[in-house]
Amino acid sequence: MSPFPTETNKHALEEGTVLSPRFDANGLVTVVATEADSGAVLMVAHMNAEALKRSIKTGEAWYWSRSRQELWHKGATSGQIQTIVEMRVDCDQDALWIKVKVGGDGGCCHTGRCSCFYRLKPLRGEAEKPLILCD
Amino acid sequence: MSPFPTETNKHALEEGTVLSPRFDANGLVTVVATEADSGAVLMVAHMNAEALKRSIKTGEAWYWSRSRQELWHKGATSGQIQTIVEMRVDCDQDALWIKVKVGGDGGCCHTGRCSCFYRLKPLRGEAEKPLILCD
Repeated sequence: MSPFPTETNKHALEEGTVLSPRFDANGLVTVVATEADSGAVLMVAHMNAEALKRSIKTGEAWYWSRSRQELWHKGATSGQIQTIVEMRVDCDQDALWIKVKVGGDGGCCHTGRCSCFYRLKPLRGEAEKPLILCD
Repeated sequence: MSPFPTETNKHALEEGTVLSPRFDANGLVTVVATEADSGAVLMVAHMNAEALKRSIKTGEAWYWSRSRQELWHKGATSGQIQTIVEMRVDCDQDALWIKVKVGGDGGCCHTGRCSCFYRLKPLRGEAEKPLILCD
């Protein structure tokens, strides 16, 4: 059973002080992890109720891996534990923002980079313009 | 027809320079908008292919409104136009990060706040602990 209540009243959902995550059809909320000091977006991932409960309880980021279909204690094998400095929820409670400090070598992306967002898209031109690898 | 190619090769998707968004079953990618100067996460929203194409072309954020089921030129009525300073795509190309400058009164959330993430969740305690309204 989910440890979180369901709130259907829009006003209560948006202005209330009860965490009532709106899990999607797959039981997930979207999570944005940013680096606590630099503010860089490190990754976008998902939590189910159990992952969210563990993240709140331990102060370390737990996710639901959609590819592996299992709970994922980020950094458990790599050492790249994400210690959550702050957690916020958005207006309609279907997204979370966590500010984290990254353990181990400070990496986050499975490709070895610090952030998953290592490619820039040039703007004000055609969609076909190539991405720029930036770090 | 989508103006974006589909890339099924994992290496090309992750290391290549072709923008090949992995739209979900509803034809959407997740978009994180942060304030270009402060780094604050303003909102998490979605783009379909057309919204993404327009965002790239104009340098202003267009989204797909899931609640209204229509293209949404953010700020068209409120003046809170989001001028995109930088757009990045993540490793597996199912999420975008845009750094934006907000026009009009600088607001973003439909509740009137600057950011949709105006509530803090206390950590290292029980899931039931109330949210804290922070601005």
